[in-house]
Amino acid sequence: MTDLAPRQKLWVERDGRVVMSDYRLRLLELVRETGSLAQAAATMKLSYRRAWGKVKEIEENLGYALVESAVGGAGGGKTELTPAGCELVEAYRRFKERMDEALERVYTEEMLRGPGPR
Amino acid sequence: MTDLAPRQKLWVERDGRVVMSDYRLRLLELVRETGSLAQAAATMKLSYRRAWGKVKEIEENLGYALVESAVGGAGGGKTELTPAGCELVEAYRRFKERMDEALERVYTEEMLRGPGPR
Repeated sequence: MTDLAPRQKLWVERDGRVVMSDYRLRLLELVRETGSLAQAAATMKLSYRRAWGKVKEIEENLGYALVESAVGGAGGGKTELTPAGCELVEAYRRFKERMDEALERVYTEEMLRGPGPR
Repeated sequence: MTDLAPRQKLWVERDGRVVMSDYRLRLLELVRETGSLAQAAATMKLSYRRAWGKVKEIEENLGYALVESAVGGAGGGKTELTPAGCELVEAYRRFKERMDEALERVYTEEMLRGPGPR
């Protein structure tokens, strides 16, 4: 089984609706890195409208603000994560990384050990 | 976030093709429990043909036999897991159960701890 590889998809639900996911993490991390929802959207090949809608959807599901926008200056508007938004991104990032580690470790321990066909 | 819940989907791939998954585990476990591919298929609301095809597909991807059929007797044919099939089912079951435990534990530790909005 040497070229077999374990995979996982993670998300967080409320009442059957996806609240947070790897995809949403990426969008929020790009906002944090670039300070711009437009740039984050472009990197993910989303329209600005769609990216904005996605952020608003997550905020609605969670019940608190994730981004704040500052208009103006020479460079135009800027979008930043709120402290709660930063905290969510960091917590979900740790959650995801620890689960990725667990996936490799548990797969190796349970599926690749002992005798038998590989 | 008390009514938020973490979710995961697990599978094993080879060259981008799904080799093993929760769905395939269920099919093989039902064969083991009932001794009958027809019954396993019925429980999963699959046609016999489709269930058979799925088992053959997993065998082809793994390169070894998972089931063996015995014809005859008063009750008709019987399908059983091979020793390697049993081993695969048991290993994947443990893999899945440990990952389910990890999901709850890591989610609680990373997403539900500390101050901040819940």
